Amino acid sequence: MTDALENPPQDNLETHLAQVQTLLARMQLAEELVHRQEGPRQDLVEDLAHKQNLAELQHRLDELHPADVAYILEALPLDERLLVWDLVKAERDGEILVEVSDAVRESLIQSMDRAELLAAAESLDTDEIADIAADLPQDVIQELLISLDAQKRAHLQSALAYPEDTVGALMDFEMVTIRADVTLEVALRYLRRLGELPDQLDKLFVVDREDTLIGVLPLKRLLTSDPEASVAAVMVEDVVKFRPADDAHEAAQAFERYDLVMAPVVDANERLIGRLTVDAVVDYIRESADADMLSMAGLREEEDLFSTVWRSAKNRWLWLSVNLATAFIASRVISVFEGSIEKLAALAALMPIIASIGGNTGNQTIALIVRGLALGQITHANARRLIVKELGVALLNGVVWGAAVAVFAWLLYDSPALGGVMALAMLLNLIVAALAGIFIPVTLEKMKRDPAIGSSVLLTFTTDSMGFFIFLGLATLLLL
Amino acid sequence: MTDALENPPQDNLETHLAQVQTLLARMQLAEELVHRQEGPRQDLVEDLAHKQNLAELQHRLDELHPADVAYILEALPLDERLLVWDLVKAERDGEILVEVSDAVRESLIQSMDRAELLAAAESLDTDEIADIAADLPQDVIQELLISLDAQKRAHLQSALAYPEDTVGALMDFEMVTIRADVTLEVALRYLRRLGELPDQLDKLFVVDREDTLIGVLPLKRLLTSDPEASVAAVMVEDVVKFRPADDAHEAAQAFERYDLVMAPVVDANERLIGRLTVDAVVDYIRESADADMLSMAGLREEEDLFSTVWRSAKNRWLWLSVNLATAFIASRVISVFEGSIEKLAALAALMPIIASIGGNTGNQTIALIVRGLALGQITHANARRLIVKELGVALLNGVVWGAAVAVFAWLLYDSPALGGVMALAMLLNLIVAALAGIFIPVTLEKMKRDPAIGSSVLLTFTTDSMGFFIFLGLATLLLL
Repeated sequence: MTDALENPPQDNLETHLAQVQTLLARMQLAEELVHRQEGPRQDLVEDLAHKQNLAELQHRLDELHPADVAYILEALPLDERLLVWDLVKAERDGEILVEVSDAVRESLIQSMDRAELLAAAESLDTDEIADIAADLPQDVIQELLISLDAQKRAHLQSALAYPEDTVGALMDFEMVTIRADVTLEVALRYLRRLGELPDQLDKLFVVDREDTLIGVLPLKRLLTSDPEASVAAVMVEDVVKFRPADDAHEAAQAFERYDLVMAPVVDANERLIGRLTVDAVVDYIRESADADMLSMAGLREEEDLFSTVWRSAKNRWLWLSVNLATAFIASRVISVFEGSIEKLAALAALMPIIASIGGNTGNQTIALIVRGLALGQITHANARRLIVKELGVALLNGVVWGAAVAVFAWLLYDSPALGGVMALAMLLNLIVAALAGIFIPVTLEKMKRDPAIGSSVLLTFTTDSMGFFIFLGLATLLLL
Repeated sequence: MTDALENPPQDNLETHLAQVQTLLARMQLAEELVHRQEGPRQDLVEDLAHKQNLAELQHRLDELHPADVAYILEALPLDERLLVWDLVKAERDGEILVEVSDAVRESLIQSMDRAELLAAAESLDTDEIADIAADLPQDVIQELLISLDAQKRAHLQSALAYPEDTVGALMDFEMVTIRADVTLEVALRYLRRLGELPDQLDKLFVVDREDTLIGVLPLKRLLTSDPEASVAAVMVEDVVKFRPADDAHEAAQAFERYDLVMAPVVDANERLIGRLTVDAVVDYIRESADADMLSMAGLREEEDLFSTVWRSAKNRWLWLSVNLATAFIASRVISVFEGSIEKLAALAALMPIIASIGGNTGNQTIALIVRGLALGQITHANARRLIVKELGVALLNGVVWGAAVAVFAWLLYDSPALGGVMALAMLLNLIVAALAGIFIPVTLEKMKRDPAIGSSVLLTFTTDSMGFFIFLGLATLLLL
């Protein structure tokens, strides 16, 4: 754990990135000159300049907070990233590995040998080791487990045992416990003897002999209450606490709702096993939001901005192939009406409008529903009203925008009947979109799948296929 | 400010929502019975049951944390929401108004008269008043300003003066300051005299006579250092601090990076004016992520799940009309080739595949670029490498998936030439998608617009229009 206060942050991160990039560019230029001019004296000069640049770069990196070094590493292409990574002092490797994104961590770890990895991991707290464990080779983890003392080994094993997205995977073990029967004066003396307190500590955990949590003593109460009072008299007994198997998403909502800085994690017998802190929660919220956005756009996992073409392509194939399959099916729907299109090619020009507006409105509904589901606000009791409301919006939009496209088609193709078909198809497809926009995410949620991810693809498939079918079907029936 | 610890949260929010909904349903049922049966005795019985239910509901609401009441209000349709809102004790109105979403707050405020609003606002801290000020009638704010004392009025005015998305709009004024020349012993006694400390306070601000910030004294240092030492000797001078005009987004990143709980806000002369706390930052991160998701889906602003059909429809019209306009243009591109489509209707069936895959891959690129821009990781120095990489992915995907669709079209329509046109069109449209996926968000960012919002619509427009044009153009040239 690094204390931000003792490692002051930078006024402007982007300035630092720019400076590092300038130094890297200068070094590259120098190298190119060396390669071009083969004179021995020239070599010497360039070599000196190179060394100077290297020293300056290293100096700059040493001054930066580990999170800032992580930021710079993420913003550099692979070759420059590894060059900078080599310049980072070995004892800082661990804390920086914790800070970088998963994709970039992988690229850094690949460049390190076993001894380096072991040294880096050993410099970390057990909960931090657990955070990067997924990217470490199995034999390094085994060796780590052997090298740790019994308590830390138990911590690491328990942290590794909890699945991602649980409180257990986010918690740490840096807490200060105290007994209920001592006075605040004694508590204050105890803290002074400890000499140092963990970051993000805003309360002491009050436990009995069996480590059962019986309350918490907020530091602000410790500081403002009579020192003669007992911990038991001052402590708070009604505590927001979590179990390691609790959903991390719900824990994050509790932190947000109740403005928590830290909270105890207890087992089924109320025994204290760890704590959850707001910095872990903030990281979790940010990472989930990022992951949601990337997966909604159809990326399988987080992608290093500068990963290789091959890796990037593979990361995108899953959703591309799904999309291709749905596009093919929509294409088959159209092909059923090829006869109609041959007779009236205007249908081909107009049909994407119906499909596109359907997809658009359906995705608006999905955004609302997915958010309502994430917040737990959509229940049996209110589902019917939601459906009625969304159908109402679809009807209203269908009439308004249906009329607009009808006039457009009429004027353009001089056919009021074609306009009428457009309007009717628009209205019907908006109703399809509203229903699909509600039922698809709700069904995915019921199937215990993440409605944020597949909903949009399934909806677009529905509104495309149905849009083509409704419009071409109506046109075939009514116009030809 | 409510202290979460003294108002214990609920194990399961959704259970509470369900209970409130059950009570509401029971009350509705009772009312319906009253209306049906007109006997005077029946009336009396139902009336009693109704009152019992009301009392039970009120009791339940009183026990809930304000954030939990807010959650329940958001999950209820308008009529039930207002019924529950009426049952909430007047003195809790303010703290609950702060917690609900903007859209729901509007619906609650509309049901309150001027005196109620004034009373609710007066129960809040100035920074909280500022948070809800946008939804309060202008005359209520004027009256509030008059009723506040000079210091609070100055606070409120300064909080109102800062635009959304700045540190000034998020900061509060609850801080504890101390002089550098006193001993820790004196500081401890001072805190004890204060009797109560603000939430989220993890450090004291050390200021001179002019209120200039000269350092901070973390509570953990205060608690662990020798009481005889002076504040000056123990305080930290290198501090993460913000100015009120700083971008809230960047401040949030700093909190995340440096694991902050609170930080001072100073003016241009380093004079202390407020503090930023992690709970405000967490709310900001969550709200920005939500707003981004909703606006990416084409909703103009946050929408109450149960707002009226008319309001919902209007909220969606801006993006629907933009989408309609772009769909019309794409439709005109197709109409240029109506002659080709009449000759070969298969073109109409196949063209959406090219457009759809283009839109899909382009949106994948956009997701990466928008995230890179938000993190400040895309710079002049690395832009070229990004373009090269994305073009590489487009080429690879174009060859692989182009071949797949070519085989498909060949088999289906028994025409190798048609397959060849499909493959070529796919490859070209993927290149268009990669370039548009980079240039559209980067250009929006350069124009100081939010690349998260307009990028996707512009991209889909590009890949649709170009997809149709490339495919139908190639087909016209090579097949007909």
